[in-house]
Amino acid sequence: MKHVLQIAGYQNSGKTTLMEKLIAHATEQGKRVAVIKHHGHGGVPELPDGKDSTRHHQAGAFVTGVEGGGILQLTIQQPSWTLPELLKLYDQFPVDSILIEGFKQTDYPKVVIIRSEEDIALVSLPGVQCVIAWCDMPKQKVPVFHVKQDDEYVPFLFKLLSANVLKI
Amino acid sequence: MKHVLQIAGYQNSGKTTLMEKLIAHATEQGKRVAVIKHHGHGGVPELPDGKDSTRHHQAGAFVTGVEGGGILQLTIQQPSWTLPELLKLYDQFPVDSILIEGFKQTDYPKVVIIRSEEDIALVSLPGVQCVIAWCDMPKQKVPVFHVKQDDEYVPFLFKLLSANVLKI
Repeated sequence: MKHVLQIAGYQNSGKTTLMEKLIAHATEQGKRVAVIKHHGHGGVPELPDGKDSTRHHQAGAFVTGVEGGGILQLTIQQPSWTLPELLKLYDQFPVDSILIEGFKQTDYPKVVIIRSEEDIALVSLPGVQCVIAWCDMPKQKVPVFHVKQDDEYVPFLFKLLSANVLKI
Repeated sequence: MKHVLQIAGYQNSGKTTLMEKLIAHATEQGKRVAVIKHHGHGGVPELPDGKDSTRHHQAGAFVTGVEGGGILQLTIQQPSWTLPELLKLYDQFPVDSILIEGFKQTDYPKVVIIRSEEDIALVSLPGVQCVIAWCDMPKQKVPVFHVKQDDEYVPFLFKLLSANVLKI
């Protein structure tokens, strides 16, 4: 059984910083965390220049992996990856929680980060259970925190995560 | 059903170049190839500085993944990875062939690259089915090619790969 939470927000809204805080908090609580990040702006993740795995990939390999000292770095190519496909793959890893960044139209329980009033439509995404805002916010049906209140919302999000069981 | 072949040789013997040629040849033949490379010299694969996935990893995440445009880059941490564990993971990817670099004491069918006479003991590794040599070689029970004869040994290795079914 794994728990799941999604983090949504536009670029430079602080998703990675929030992710780091949530990972660190969950890790302190003894949980093993996995992260899925979707490259929202359409490009592919950068392959490091001149590395063997990049050379293998350029020669045509669909899967390249380098393993050492307990770390496995894998690059897997297929026409496209859906979130369910990613979750199916992740489901077999020995982790307790999966945090998802991106795929924001998907109906997983999520927190949204609102940088400015222009972003407020994000609150209507499916599954929103919490809002973190950099600006003043009109009242919402779900809890709203200011971005500076991380000592409050990080534990809150950890509880939210722990309450949401992943169904595949 | 997947096919498997191992490539063994010391550092700077040309393993990556051979891997590239074999991947390119197999790809031309319509095969989908996966590669497993073991970091023989003990270190962990380098994590790119400042990337989100590295930040997630440093915050304590056991699995980090970035997906975009059909490419998934995964970093998975566990105390250690055995070759059978890696093969079990790879077995579910939609590829035809798995090429393994490193783990040279393992008994999978393999080609060894001999850079100089000092390397000749590699011929006694378990599963050796072909030798590629930079130097003169005493007669062997298995075919021996000179490193320059790649137009001969690349198709030969592809046949060898196609004949060796992975058993997990």
